Amino acid sequence: MSLHLVHEKINQAIAILNEKDIDLWMIFVRESGTMRDPAMEMVVGTNATWQSAFLINKNGDTTAIVGSLEVPNMQMVGTYKNVIGYLQSVKEPLLEYLSKNNPQKIAVNYSINSNLADGLTHGLYLILKKHLEGTDFIERFISSEDIIASLRGRKSASEIELMKVAVMHTEEIFKEATKFIAPGKTEIEIAEYVRTKIYERGLGLAWAEDHCPSVFTGPDTAGAHAGPTDRKVEKGHIINMDFGVKYNGYCSDMQRTWYILKDGEDVAPESVQRGFEVLKTAIQKAKAVVRPGIKGCEVDDAARNYITQNGYAEYQHGLGHQLGRTAHDGGGGLFPRWERYGNLPYIPIEENQIYTIEPRLFVEGHGVITMEEEVVVTKDGCEYLTNPQTELMLIK
Amino acid sequence: MSLHLVHEKINQAIAILNEKDIDLWMIFVRESGTMRDPAMEMVVGTNATWQSAFLINKNGDTTAIVGSLEVPNMQMVGTYKNVIGYLQSVKEPLLEYLSKNNPQKIAVNYSINSNLADGLTHGLYLILKKHLEGTDFIERFISSEDIIASLRGRKSASEIELMKVAVMHTEEIFKEATKFIAPGKTEIEIAEYVRTKIYERGLGLAWAEDHCPSVFTGPDTAGAHAGPTDRKVEKGHIINMDFGVKYNGYCSDMQRTWYILKDGEDVAPESVQRGFEVLKTAIQKAKAVVRPGIKGCEVDDAARNYITQNGYAEYQHGLGHQLGRTAHDGGGGLFPRWERYGNLPYIPIEENQIYTIEPRLFVEGHGVITMEEEVVVTKDGCEYLTNPQTELMLIK
Repeated sequence: MSLHLVHEKINQAIAILNEKDIDLWMIFVRESGTMRDPAMEMVVGTNATWQSAFLINKNGDTTAIVGSLEVPNMQMVGTYKNVIGYLQSVKEPLLEYLSKNNPQKIAVNYSINSNLADGLTHGLYLILKKHLEGTDFIERFISSEDIIASLRGRKSASEIELMKVAVMHTEEIFKEATKFIAPGKTEIEIAEYVRTKIYERGLGLAWAEDHCPSVFTGPDTAGAHAGPTDRKVEKGHIINMDFGVKYNGYCSDMQRTWYILKDGEDVAPESVQRGFEVLKTAIQKAKAVVRPGIKGCEVDDAARNYITQNGYAEYQHGLGHQLGRTAHDGGGGLFPRWERYGNLPYIPIEENQIYTIEPRLFVEGHGVITMEEEVVVTKDGCEYLTNPQTELMLIK
Repeated sequence: MSLHLVHEKINQAIAILNEKDIDLWMIFVRESGTMRDPAMEMVVGTNATWQSAFLINKNGDTTAIVGSLEVPNMQMVGTYKNVIGYLQSVKEPLLEYLSKNNPQKIAVNYSINSNLADGLTHGLYLILKKHLEGTDFIERFISSEDIIASLRGRKSASEIELMKVAVMHTEEIFKEATKFIAPGKTEIEIAEYVRTKIYERGLGLAWAEDHCPSVFTGPDTAGAHAGPTDRKVEKGHIINMDFGVKYNGYCSDMQRTWYILKDGEDVAPESVQRGFEVLKTAIQKAKAVVRPGIKGCEVDDAARNYITQNGYAEYQHGLGHQLGRTAHDGGGGLFPRWERYGNLPYIPIEENQIYTIEPRLFVEGHGVITMEEEVVVTKDGCEYLTNPQTELMLIK
């Protein structure tokens, strides 16, 4: 992670505090090497062992209160103007800071709606509550989810550039995989081949190795979010793969679909070709809806309705999510109005956010067709970051 | 992570639930790929995207309630006997499970005292509270910290074997580093050399790369928990290094100290030698106190008092911590009675726990002397896992 980007993001955070009229953003953590508040890599740039408060003030001040042993490290990292060390308890310096600055609205790192804004653990919340006993600061707490949604979502030009490079690598690796996939190969072999190619390029994985990539071949596969198995690619299978790379801290996330020709076939069967065309069109229809101000669920509607209108079962997940430093990034997403998504489907889309579009459908007897494209939101619409899959890839 | 070890640990957890008379242990998480409850690698063995409950029952039953898309993955991982999927909300299947089993004491994954038992984020706690509205289940909640302390602390014979291998690698790498360290080399160069050696052996790092290893040379260094700098090793410096490796999921954590001879010197100056002897004896005195039933703070006393009695300033951290799947593992540690350690200094030591012993002292004009050894608690005392440093290593 680049400290230059951390400085950039802290300055962006100060602007967002002013825009949203929030006096203080406090990130309260401990042992962040074990459980790391996802905001830390963005606006802290190092870890903290003991109870620590990272304070970003609307007035532009930044203060880190950390265990005394970590003061030199914080000073060396240099992302906070003031570094205060304590030996026995964070309570006194924290109370002193709050009393002196007297913030009326304090955004704290917990959130019902967004896991990426929910870095404060419940036990640590109880500790913080105890530290502040006898004051009314805790009544001034709000969730920092709006700050984080804006901060993670709105990509700077240099962030978008990094994500384009991640896509470029991903597309090249898909091309290499297309040469490797063949009847008789197992899902695990294909996944291992792709991982090797990722590592050879010095890239990281966008999510956990056990299902990055995910590979699914044939009609009897497990469905999304499962790891590859020793199931073998067979003629007549649809095969698809889902993976992303991490380039300089930024993720890609893409899916592509192939068909394995049977002996004597030159093209895919009609049912497979039709499924591919419906899925491709569903993505185009969704993309046409994306623009600032639209709600994510309206984009999901476009793809979901098109797929069901064409007689396919609806996909059992959201149409797409934001992408950035993590594969599931940002606040709102292109989600259906299901309870498990909370308020996230209703958050308006903003310029410079990056979303995936990834519907899926099942073709009886052959397998799952799914492509995943990435788009960046522009002033009045959106543009692909990926080169969308326009043809079903055929493998002999 | 080996699924065999996960099964072993789940069975151990069931035994601990019976021992402590707790009816149910619930781990409640979401998006654990981003913020991963540290208990998951131990007793789940995979990640969960949507709100998920992992339920270990005193009666031996294990049930995972996960988003429907992750059912096949959970079944494939196979660590839970019952896997229940949901499409819209975890609330109904969770309430159904709780109503049916009616547990009186429910240990939940949050903790004031131990960050390793504090995997439930505050926002997610608020969600869980809402799911359980209208029932009295939330009043039956207790922290799962005691379960986790026992589970992480008490190492099986096979866990101890893995940790011995991690120590063996660490000691070999220290030997290689001894040949590499020389006047003119920077802390960063030495750290990079050691990291290369770790990676060449196919090992992981025990903590974050930015200060694994930590290297400190000379009298003007930053102190613990800081990364290496471009400060150069000079004649007359004391140099020390702190690092650990991860072998099959288990960590080592060791420190060693060298002295750089000045021109004409054959031995270290008296002040350096005396500091080394005092530190060595402090470790021996602490080790002599360790046995089941003793409190961690009593062990810290032994080393801390010996060091101050000999005229050195006390070290500004705990004497040692538990070690296992993470470098700062388990519940209690060999900590002083300082507020920032909560109740952890007072938890009795148990058989088969593994602790580090790592005091430090400063020698004016030369630098910091610190060694870090590992001990495993036996029936009536403890044994070194490391081969303790008995001589100050001299470099020409």
